[in-house]
Amino acid sequence: MTDLTNRDAMISLAVSTVIFALRPDRPTELPSLWLPLVRRIRPPCEGQWALPGGPLRADEDLESAAARTLAATTALAPSYLEQLYAFGTLDRSPGEARLAAERGQNERVVSIVYWALVNSDEVTQSAGSSASENVAWFSVDDLPDLAFDHDVIIEYALWRLRNKVEYSRIAHAFLGDTFTLAELREVHEAVLGRSLDPANFRRQLESSNTIVPTGKRVTGTSYRPPKLYRYNQAIDPLDRGPLSPGNAPSRKPNS
Amino acid sequence: MTDLTNRDAMISLAVSTVIFALRPDRPTELPSLWLPLVRRIRPPCEGQWALPGGPLRADEDLESAAARTLAATTALAPSYLEQLYAFGTLDRSPGEARLAAERGQNERVVSIVYWALVNSDEVTQSAGSSASENVAWFSVDDLPDLAFDHDVIIEYALWRLRNKVEYSRIAHAFLGDTFTLAELREVHEAVLGRSLDPANFRRQLESSNTIVPTGKRVTGTSYRPPKLYRYNQAIDPLDRGPLSPGNAPSRKPNS
Repeated sequence: MTDLTNRDAMISLAVSTVIFALRPDRPTELPSLWLPLVRRIRPPCEGQWALPGGPLRADEDLESAAARTLAATTALAPSYLEQLYAFGTLDRSPGEARLAAERGQNERVVSIVYWALVNSDEVTQSAGSSASENVAWFSVDDLPDLAFDHDVIIEYALWRLRNKVEYSRIAHAFLGDTFTLAELREVHEAVLGRSLDPANFRRQLESSNTIVPTGKRVTGTSYRPPKLYRYNQAIDPLDRGPLSPGNAPSRKPNS
Repeated sequence: MTDLTNRDAMISLAVSTVIFALRPDRPTELPSLWLPLVRRIRPPCEGQWALPGGPLRADEDLESAAARTLAATTALAPSYLEQLYAFGTLDRSPGEARLAAERGQNERVVSIVYWALVNSDEVTQSAGSSASENVAWFSVDDLPDLAFDHDVIIEYALWRLRNKVEYSRIAHAFLGDTFTLAELREVHEAVLGRSLDPANFRRQLESSNTIVPTGKRVTGTSYRPPKLYRYNQAIDPLDRGPLSPGNAPSRKPNS
C-alpha cells in the first residue's frame, strides 16, 4: 500500500511561485500589489502568461526550487516564502493533456505552488534588471490571459495573503523594521485593494497588540512628526508549514 | 522556464493521509485521539509503521487519492478532509535513498499529505472490519517507531488540528448536528490532550459566537437535562484550500 509502482510514471512534478510586491501606482504614487509573470514561448498555451516555475530538480528541496525560480525571475531574495498548495486535479491543463494525447501520451503535471513577498525597495532597485525579456510585472487588478489553471492559483494566493494581512504580522515583509501607522495602513490598503478609515485602523491595531510604539518619531520632517512602531515579536506568526524557522509546531498548544 | 524536462524523471509522487478519530479510552471511557497506521511489509523501513498512502495514480485527483487511501485503510468516508502539506526535502527517507543508491538509482519520493477526521460513531461500527491485517490504530500519545519522516508529518497534522479546534468549527466533524457543552468540551479535551475548566470553556464559547443554542435539551435523562447547541453556520470555516466546497476564496475580504 505504501510502495511505489510505475502507475505514476507519467506524472510530472513542477514547482511554481506567486511573487507579490508593492509598487507605486502612477500618478497617485500610492503602493499597489503587483506580480511577475513569464510569457510561454512554446506549447501548450504558447504566448500566454504563466507563473514562474519549472520542474523540480532531483537534487533540490521544494523550497529551494521556489527560491531558485524567484531569483531567476526577479533577481530578488524573498522577504517571505511559504508553501501555498499542491494543485493536481486532472483537468488543470486541458491544453497540455490534449497535446500529450496527440503524442499518444497520458502526461500530467502536479504543481506544488509557493507564494512569496518581496520588499518594495528591492523591487525598485531591480527594476530594469529583469532576468529575462519574457518576464513582465502586472497589477493584480489587471492580469492578462493566464495559462493552465494559474488564474485559480493566483486567486487563492491573493486570498491567503489578504487573510494573513488581517490576522498576522505578514505586512512586515513589505516594511522596514520600524514604520508609521500611515505606512502600515498603505500596505494593508494595497493588499486588500480598498481604502481603510485611518481612525478605525488605528483603533483596531492598538487593541490587537500586534504592533508596539518604539518611542521614536520620524525625524525632522514636520511640526508633529508621526510616531514609529514595530511589530510585537511575542505574537506568533500564523502557520507557515512544518519545517520553517519560527514555526509553530515546536510550541504545541498543550505545552 | 515552465517546460518539463527529464530532470524530474526519478522523482515519484505519493499521497498519504493522517486520519484522526476519537475513541473511548479504557477504563475511563473518555474519548482520546487515535490514528491508523500501516505496517510496511517490504523495504525500505520494513516492519516499521507508516501513514496509509501510496503512489498517485495517473487517472485520479490528489483528493480522490487521499479518500481512496482512507477507504482502503478504515472502510470509512471522512467527515473532514484537507490538504496538509507537500513534503519534499531531500533527506526525508534516508533508508530509501540508501537502497536506491545501492541499486544505482537516484530515487526520491515527494509526498502530498492530507489529513482527515472520521466520526467516532463510524469508527466504533467499523471496528473489527479493518481492511487489512497490517493496519492498526494507535493513540497519538503512544505511537510506534515510524518510517521515513512520518513522525514529523504526524506532529504537524496534530498541530494543525489543535490550532483549528481553537479557531474554527472543526470539532463539528467529531460530533452530531447538535451536542451538549460537555460533549463539545470532551472533544476539545481529547484533541488538545488536556482537561479544560468547564466554566472557562463555557464563557469562551459563549463570547466567541461560534455555537448557538437550539432551544432544546437532551430528552428524559435527568432532573435538569443539559441544553443542546449547534455550530453557527454563519461563521466561516478556516482556509481549506482553493477548490473545496464552502471554500473562502469565493468570499474575498474586500467584497
